[in-house]
Amino acid sequence: MNSPEGSTLWFIPDGYLATPLENDPVYKNHESICVMNVTDQDAHLKLDFYFADRPPIEDVPVLIPAKRCIHVRMDDPANTGGQPLPLDTPYGTRIRSDVPVVVQYSRLYSTTRNISLMTTMAYSG
Amino acid sequence: MNSPEGSTLWFIPDGYLATPLENDPVYKNHESICVMNVTDQDAHLKLDFYFADRPPIEDVPVLIPAKRCIHVRMDDPANTGGQPLPLDTPYGTRIRSDVPVVVQYSRLYSTTRNISLMTTMAYSG
Amino acid sequence: MNSPEGSTLWFIPDGYLATPLENDPVYKNHESICVMNVTDQDAHLKLDFYFADRPPIEDVPVLIPAKRCIHVRMDDPANTGGQPLPLDTPYGTRIRSDVPVVVQYSRLYSTTRNISLMTTMAYSG
Amino acid sequence: MNSPEGSTLWFIPDGYLATPLENDPVYKNHESICVMNVTDQDAHLKLDFYFADRPPIEDVPVLIPAKRCIHVRMDDPANTGGQPLPLDTPYGTRIRSDVPVVVQYSRLYSTTRNISLMTTMAYSG
Repeated sequence: MNSPEGSTLWFIPDGYLATPLENDPVYKNHESICVMNVTDQDAHLKLDFYFADRPPIEDVPVLIPAKRCIHVRMDDPANTGGQPLPLDTPYGTRIRSDVPVVVQYSRLYSTTRNISLMTTMAYSG
Repeated sequence: MNSPEGSTLWFIPDGYLATPLENDPVYKNHESICVMNVTDQDAHLKLDFYFADRPPIEDVPVLIPAKRCIHVRMDDPANTGGQPLPLDTPYGTRIRSDVPVVVQYSRLYSTTRNISLMTTMAYSG
Repeated sequence: MNSPEGSTLWFIPDGYLATPLENDPVYKNHESICVMNVTDQDAHLKLDFYFADRPPIEDVPVLIPAKRCIHVRMDDPANTGGQPLPLDTPYGTRIRSDVPVVVQYSRLYSTTRNISLMTTMAYSG
Repeated sequence: MNSPEGSTLWFIPDGYLATPLENDPVYKNHESICVMNVTDQDAHLKLDFYFADRPPIEDVPVLIPAKRCIHVRMDDPANTGGQPLPLDTPYGTRIRSDVPVVVQYSRLYSTTRNISLMTTMAYSG
């Protein structure tokens, strides 16, 4: 499933979105699944969300056009099947694509005190 | 040992838990080993902890149910063999599983001044 | 494309440079693509930048001399084709090299409140 | 060079140690190369440091005993060939070992304002 243009299967075990602080519109905490499609075909992704104590949410569609890079915000219900993911809840994401893509995961965590960033390449199956 | 559902062997060389600050229940510093099991079989993990100056602690069991994602807290003695890991002590973790899983490691470090996050995929053997 | 000296193809899907704060010359926020060339041949890189809503910028040349390690600053127009990359804009980078190199991506994010770092190895195709 | 116990070759392109703040003994900024040796043989590492504008420093020995995990501090001249690495200077590290090990790189950056952490698995050749 790996090619010089990426992989069609990716995993991100550490997903978590803390309830955003109401008084902080600029530095709102958020997560992004950053997807790069260098092929000349649109990539039709399916996202599956896994949880600790309930069945997975599966087959959520996301489109990454040909030769584009989209930072898919996980706090946008359009990217999580029309409903927001539960807040303050550990989850993991599997990404399946019909064409090879490359996936990186990043989180900005904004507390009452400061901003913190973390990032990692996703794991390609 | 690799499959489209992950790997049965993972390593995390940088483990470290600073003594939590007493006065900070919300942003307590902690580490999580985030494990995603997309198979339809329960994953029986064995965790081995390696140290700089003493023999390893081996074969600590952790269960990740089928089709679930658990963020395993390392400050919970239930996940470290019944006894807490030593604080302020460098260690590394090897994770062995009977079914393929995907593993990511994250740390939240809360000092007297601020919060910081770091994360990385574990290394799959 | 992989060898004991690295790979000739790398991807970084999460690029983003927030507008730097005017009043902070020391801790200016920035991104670096860190490239290590352990071979005895100069590495001629070509960088391709992908965006969410416009065609990619391709074939931007960067030189990494033999047996050198350069932290390529993305806020230096010399490394982005003579023109600065757009600020506050998600993008991804593909790196192609004529000799094997190793690539890591790091970001320092300086807000009005604090400094935050994140890093990851790039993905090798 | 890869085995179920790790790899004998690793790379870390983003090394950088800012001059530590004099007035901060507790949260001194530092870098660690975290090495896990799960084999029953001592690992004899050789570290090579690469720079932007000067020849590499090569063959610096570091010992990781059998079944131990050491967080090798890069601000300890014992681990960098008897002399400290230059401060405020980009560099990269290659790690060669006679037995398979697993390597992760972490940095704690302490500024006048706050603490920040970053980490990544090293790249295995």
